Amino acid sequence: MKTILLIGIGAGNPAQLTVEAIDALNAADVFFVVDKGARTSDLIRLREEICARFITAPRYRVASIPDPKRDRAPADYLAAVETWHHERAVAYETAITDELKDGETGAFLVWGDPALYDSTIRILDQVLARGVVAFRYRVIPGISAVQALAAAHRIPLNSIGGAVHVTTGRRLAEAVPTEADTIVVMLDDGQGLAGFPRDEFDIYWGAYLGTADEVLIAGPASDVVEDILRLRRDRRAAKGWIMDIFLLRRHEIP
Amino acid sequence: MKTILLIGIGAGNPAQLTVEAIDALNAADVFFVVDKGARTSDLIRLREEICARFITAPRYRVASIPDPKRDRAPADYLAAVETWHHERAVAYETAITDELKDGETGAFLVWGDPALYDSTIRILDQVLARGVVAFRYRVIPGISAVQALAAAHRIPLNSIGGAVHVTTGRRLAEAVPTEADTIVVMLDDGQGLAGFPRDEFDIYWGAYLGTADEVLIAGPASDVVEDILRLRRDRRAAKGWIMDIFLLRRHEIP
Repeated sequence: MKTILLIGIGAGNPAQLTVEAIDALNAADVFFVVDKGARTSDLIRLREEICARFITAPRYRVASIPDPKRDRAPADYLAAVETWHHERAVAYETAITDELKDGETGAFLVWGDPALYDSTIRILDQVLARGVVAFRYRVIPGISAVQALAAAHRIPLNSIGGAVHVTTGRRLAEAVPTEADTIVVMLDDGQGLAGFPRDEFDIYWGAYLGTADEVLIAGPASDVVEDILRLRRDRRAAKGWIMDIFLLRRHEIP
Repeated sequence: MKTILLIGIGAGNPAQLTVEAIDALNAADVFFVVDKGARTSDLIRLREEICARFITAPRYRVASIPDPKRDRAPADYLAAVETWHHERAVAYETAITDELKDGETGAFLVWGDPALYDSTIRILDQVLARGVVAFRYRVIPGISAVQALAAAHRIPLNSIGGAVHVTTGRRLAEAVPTEADTIVVMLDDGQGLAGFPRDEFDIYWGAYLGTADEVLIAGPASDVVEDILRLRRDRRAAKGWIMDIFLLRRHEIP
C-alpha cells in the first residue's frame, strides 16, 4: 500500500509547523510539488527552507506534477473549477502511480491548513474515486492565515458569543447582511477590499504573514482602507505577488 | 517589563503543538492556571503531559488564578459575560502583579487557538486597560478543534469557493438561513445538535478530538443525529464531561 500525507505547513512562519507536521516531513520518501510557475518562487524557497530546517536525515526525492492551465475569468466559475480539478486529478494520479512505490510515503506540503481553501483533499478523493491507483492518506492540520492574522493583531476572531464568517473576496457582498459580526476574507484580488460598506466595520489586514515582509494595518475601515489598497498595489508591484487576508468587525450597535 | 505568552496548545493531541508554542513553553518562568474545578481534571492531566513532554529544563513555577463563579443561565447573556470578564480581569491582575517579577515571562496555555472562543485575550486587554500592572504580551496560534475535526474526517472546511460559518450552538438557528453551505458549531450543549433541520445537511461530528477517547461520526444528518445524541449522552455520563464539535454541510442543490 502507498501512503500519502497532506501536511499543513502554516501561514509562512516556519515556527508554526506542528510536531506532527515535522514527523510527517521526516516520514516522506517523495515530496510531490505542483509546478505553478515563476510567480511563487519565494514560496518555493520558503518551502525548501522548511525542509532544510526540519528534516533531520534527508533521503527524500522530489516529484514534479505539472499544473493544468486554469481559466481565471470563466463564464461558469464552478464548471471551470471542476474541469481544472479533473485535469489535476489525472496529473496527480500519474505522479502517484509512477513516482511512489508500494510501501512508500508521499507528501504534499500545503500552506496554511489543508482544509481551508486548498483543493488537494478534493483532488486526492477524486484520484481514489477513479480507482486507478490505491493509497491511504492522512491530513495534518496547519496554522491557517486566519489564525496568523488574529495572533499578529492580538485579537479574538469572534466577538463575545458571536459567529465568525470566513469567505472569499468574491462572496463578501453576500456575507455583509448576515448576523456574523466578524467576517474574514481570503483569496481576495482587491475587489472585496475595495467594495464593502466602510462605515460599518473596523478592519484588521495583514500580508505576507509570518515572513520577513509581514505588514499589518488596523483601524476603522473608512480611515484605513485607502492606505491598505495603496500599500497592496505597491507591494504587489514590487514583489510580483501578494498574499493577504483581512478581518472585518462590525461596529458595536450604540 | 513583564512578558505574557498566550500559548495555543491544540485541540487535544500533543503532537499538534507548534515549534513556536514549544519555544514559548520553554521560555516561561510562571504558568498561570485558572482553576475551573474538578470537571476538567482530565484536561489538567493532559496539560501536565504536554509540559512534561516538551519542556526540556523544567524551572517553572505554577500560579493558580481563582475562577469567579459564572451565571450559566442569565437573563441577560452579554451583561453576565461582561461581569464575569471584569471579575476575571481583577483576578488575573492580582496574579500577574503578585506572582510574576519584572523581566520574567508568564504563560497561559489555551486549548485550541487563543483567538477562537477563548476569553484570555479580552481579559488581558482589560487588565492592561485598568493600568494597574504593565506587561507586553504575544499570542501564539494553535490548531483549533475546527481544524482537528476537518483533518480527522479528511474533509475540506469550505465547499468549492464557498463560505465557512463558525458559530455556537446557541446561534445555530440564525446561521441556517445564511448563504454559507458549511456551518461549524462549537460550544454546543446539545440543543443546537438536536434542533437544526436535518434533511438539509450532512453532519461531521467529533468528540474528545486528538485524545485516546476520540470518536467520530459522519453521514446524512437525518440518519445519524439520533445516534450522535445518544452517544453524546452516554459518553458525557461516563466521563463526567464532553468536548465536541460538528460541521454541517448543506446538501448540494440538485
